[in-house]
Amino acid sequence: MSPDPTRRSERSRQAILTATRELLFDVGYGNLTIEGIAHRAGVGKQTIYRWWPSKGAVMFESLVPADGPDAALPDTGDVEADLRTVLRAVVEQFNTPHLERMTRALAIEVHNDPVLGREMVERLLQPQLELTKERLRAAQRTGELAADLDLQVAVELLFGPVFHRWMLRTAPLTPEYADTVASMAVAAMRPQPARR
Amino acid sequence: MSPDPTRRSERSRQAILTATRELLFDVGYGNLTIEGIAHRAGVGKQTIYRWWPSKGAVMFESLVPADGPDAALPDTGDVEADLRTVLRAVVEQFNTPHLERMTRALAIEVHNDPVLGREMVERLLQPQLELTKERLRAAQRTGELAADLDLQVAVELLFGPVFHRWMLRTAPLTPEYADTVASMAVAAMRPQPARR
Repeated sequence: MSPDPTRRSERSRQAILTATRELLFDVGYGNLTIEGIAHRAGVGKQTIYRWWPSKGAVMFESLVPADGPDAALPDTGDVEADLRTVLRAVVEQFNTPHLERMTRALAIEVHNDPVLGREMVERLLQPQLELTKERLRAAQRTGELAADLDLQVAVELLFGPVFHRWMLRTAPLTPEYADTVASMAVAAMRPQPARR
Repeated sequence: MSPDPTRRSERSRQAILTATRELLFDVGYGNLTIEGIAHRAGVGKQTIYRWWPSKGAVMFESLVPADGPDAALPDTGDVEADLRTVLRAVVEQFNTPHLERMTRALAIEVHNDPVLGREMVERLLQPQLELTKERLRAAQRTGELAADLDLQVAVELLFGPVFHRWMLRTAPLTPEYADTVASMAVAAMRPQPARR
């Protein structure tokens, strides 16, 4: 029996994606080349270009989790505590050198290429934001958060500040910082007292 | 009398900075080259390299306002209304094509080059954030905002969400959006009621 070409092809694809991830972590996006990926994956450059038009496209594909988005957010019944846990995890991720390098690489691609950027946001970011909105909806049902909250703005209020500080390196990203942002964002999302 | 070499040199510098700004607006950062700047400014490439080590450095210098940071924020006595005005202006800026192109160019440089990024943040961004903090301090004095506010987090809560949406293009940046972010951020900054 001859080897199954579909299976062999899938093996090459996976080898390319693994090589891309490893190189991203090792040398960063700036030093990533199609040649380097081909060499590490043990394939020809043409094999890569058969599936992906650019270095950005193969990088992006290599980062989409194969097993779908992460699990739901914790729900202890205290939305502020749960969001602190989430933001502490985000801060830890930004402080992990190879993940931070990778995220900057993604950010540059998003700025450079609106089409790739849109796909990246839809497949990598939105699923995470949706999980957060799910948790906020649960807190709306229990009355912890305002019923008329704009959930898209709410998630931006939560992640936007961390993102801003990370990108601009204006101050350290500490666990205490994550707690402060979570507390302030939740204060903005609670039912607001009538004023004056 | 021979021409003053210092003055001639300053004229070349200014011509280079003007050419850089014009090209950034016209062709964008991706298509900006040292050759292009030299051609437009009527100088040799070596004249540019005498003052700046890279395309990023000359771009950055070209964008620092020569006349210092902008004026203070409006103070009508209603901090929420004043911050809506500020955020509406930011949103309008992000919706202006040549400014949006330029800001994405800056963002890419900040990701690519931490040293240039730090200088950019110190000279272009921090003066703006300081003016906002000044306005928040005034509102703390009148009791509109909490006295123990972390002002750095407060400005991130204000600009971070807009920044996040702009960068990731997750939804349109409208004046109504600016209002919602300003209102929610200010809600988080007001003296908080004791809970439970």
